Amino acid sequence: MKNNPCIGIILDPWELGTFLPKDLRQQLEQVSTDLHFVEPASLLEDETWASWLEEHQPEILISAWMTPRLPEDVLERVPSLKYVCHLVGAVKGTVPDELIEKGLLVTNWGSSIARTVAECGLMMAIAGLRRVSHWSIELHQRGGWKDRMTVQTGSLFGRKVGLHGFGAIAQELAKLLQPFEVQLMTYSPSVPDSLLEAAGVARADDLETLFSSNDVLIELAALTPKNRGIVTEELLRSIPEGGVFVNIGRGAVVDEEALVRVAAEGRIQVALDVYKEEPLPRDSPLRGMTNVLLLPHLGGPTIDRRRDATALGLKNVRHYLRGEPLESQVTSRVYQRIT
Amino acid sequence: MKNNPCIGIILDPWELGTFLPKDLRQQLEQVSTDLHFVEPASLLEDETWASWLEEHQPEILISAWMTPRLPEDVLERVPSLKYVCHLVGAVKGTVPDELIEKGLLVTNWGSSIARTVAECGLMMAIAGLRRVSHWSIELHQRGGWKDRMTVQTGSLFGRKVGLHGFGAIAQELAKLLQPFEVQLMTYSPSVPDSLLEAAGVARADDLETLFSSNDVLIELAALTPKNRGIVTEELLRSIPEGGVFVNIGRGAVVDEEALVRVAAEGRIQVALDVYKEEPLPRDSPLRGMTNVLLLPHLGGPTIDRRRDATALGLKNVRHYLRGEPLESQVTSRVYQRIT
Repeated sequence: MKNNPCIGIILDPWELGTFLPKDLRQQLEQVSTDLHFVEPASLLEDETWASWLEEHQPEILISAWMTPRLPEDVLERVPSLKYVCHLVGAVKGTVPDELIEKGLLVTNWGSSIARTVAECGLMMAIAGLRRVSHWSIELHQRGGWKDRMTVQTGSLFGRKVGLHGFGAIAQELAKLLQPFEVQLMTYSPSVPDSLLEAAGVARADDLETLFSSNDVLIELAALTPKNRGIVTEELLRSIPEGGVFVNIGRGAVVDEEALVRVAAEGRIQVALDVYKEEPLPRDSPLRGMTNVLLLPHLGGPTIDRRRDATALGLKNVRHYLRGEPLESQVTSRVYQRIT
Repeated sequence: MKNNPCIGIILDPWELGTFLPKDLRQQLEQVSTDLHFVEPASLLEDETWASWLEEHQPEILISAWMTPRLPEDVLERVPSLKYVCHLVGAVKGTVPDELIEKGLLVTNWGSSIARTVAECGLMMAIAGLRRVSHWSIELHQRGGWKDRMTVQTGSLFGRKVGLHGFGAIAQELAKLLQPFEVQLMTYSPSVPDSLLEAAGVARADDLETLFSSNDVLIELAALTPKNRGIVTEELLRSIPEGGVFVNIGRGAVVDEEALVRVAAEGRIQVALDVYKEEPLPRDSPLRGMTNVLLLPHLGGPTIDRRRDATALGLKNVRHYLRGEPLESQVTSRVYQRIT
């Protein structure tokens, strides 16, 4: 392992407190004593940021949401810089594409957040079946209680659950669903049969089959150009009556205007964490529909599990120093797909 | 097995449709062809009900919420009657205490509902950590979105979870919590060590330890005279900041006025399915507290899982006919404890 690399940590106090609690900071200090912490707020002018980098000549940067965008000529000005360990998802705000092309190593939080997103999806599915959004409004705002007509609650036990997409989050979700004795089906053309067989998940040959033959649909497809708006009104309308549509993936995968029309009919319950436009516009017709549970894109990771992203980051820093492959690397190809 | 017992089924159309779907009705028809269905609404006068029983002389009754109370002299008037298979929980509305003393066999839905209540508790714990009640109000009613101050979300993964009570529901909950890598602790003096060891649950020696050393507290204690109000203000105040208190047991186990005071401080999240008084009074101060998730006592079973109660009932009918012991029998002792 290389000795004592120079590491720049560009996190604001909130990021620092949540991503780098004491025990993880101690782990970082074991990797290197040449650590340089700086607040993003002090680097707001382009030249300040470039000067800071030139002054410290870091080999590794640990970055997050507040880290300013790297100068496009940073590799010429800071030839020591080899690896950006980005603790969050979107790297586009921090790392220009060209730097990856030129060989800068970049990782992000990758699959370390999958289990918390899966947890949120499980909760949203059960909350949809139990109509939690309705009860929150009814009990808090209207002074109400249940009656025979409104208490049409359902359980996850023994249900048919369809997963649109079978990446890291869906795989974690399959584990959480295991005790519920559900029948799992997925539409995910790129996933090999062996993986589905190991997870006990049936393959749907098309989205029509997935949507029309499951009680609970969980949307997890990546937002590729092909997937934009792929969940159409026809698909949403094919969900069996009393079913639940959960989106913890990307809002723009769904035709949101169609979702509004289908939700307004009240045949299905809907639970959304993501939207076509975020923040959700104040005048969105989704607001006020009590059969729609609304969350403000907080699927994962939760504040207390940001440490999982740092744990992956520290593992990657150690791998980097030993010349070993990195996990959740943001290659040029991955970068292009990030939305 | 006895042949073709006379069975009276006293369910209203809603109960019939939800407790006795086609496949379970066919199973019942295999037990006996001497089935007599009657709508409770046609038996509202005491004499009509007694006359119906005298006319049919059933050996077994299948009853639910709408079944009228049996005449206290029914065993004299209908000597054939041996077993009341009550498909729901509270038997007091249907079976007078004296009849059990006189040897009438009675069962209820017993532990068949445990897994759906556990499912609701799991959802409420995650929803509390994610502040779902807050978001429902914020997004539906206030046109809002998240910001750094409000997005203090937490995950169940790796948490310390305390269970007050370790009966059938808590045992099912322990199974559902298994993938979350939680540390489980319970306060339940009557449960043997062997059961806790098998479930991987630590024992708390007192309630003070349970409440002060867990992040998520799930209230499941039975409402015995000793347990009334046993969850005091001091205990609630000892829950660590950011913790969650979930009640899916009985409302009166908690000092609800104290809960209101502690919840108002906003230090903890609260998720309630049960209350001291139900329906929850319109002017309850709990209404409007956005750190309190409110549900109208729908823990379990959900409508789609009422069939689980019938499945247990049919199993018991078969056991009865073979002279075998019944599950979830409501003995005199159990009857006295029911609240």
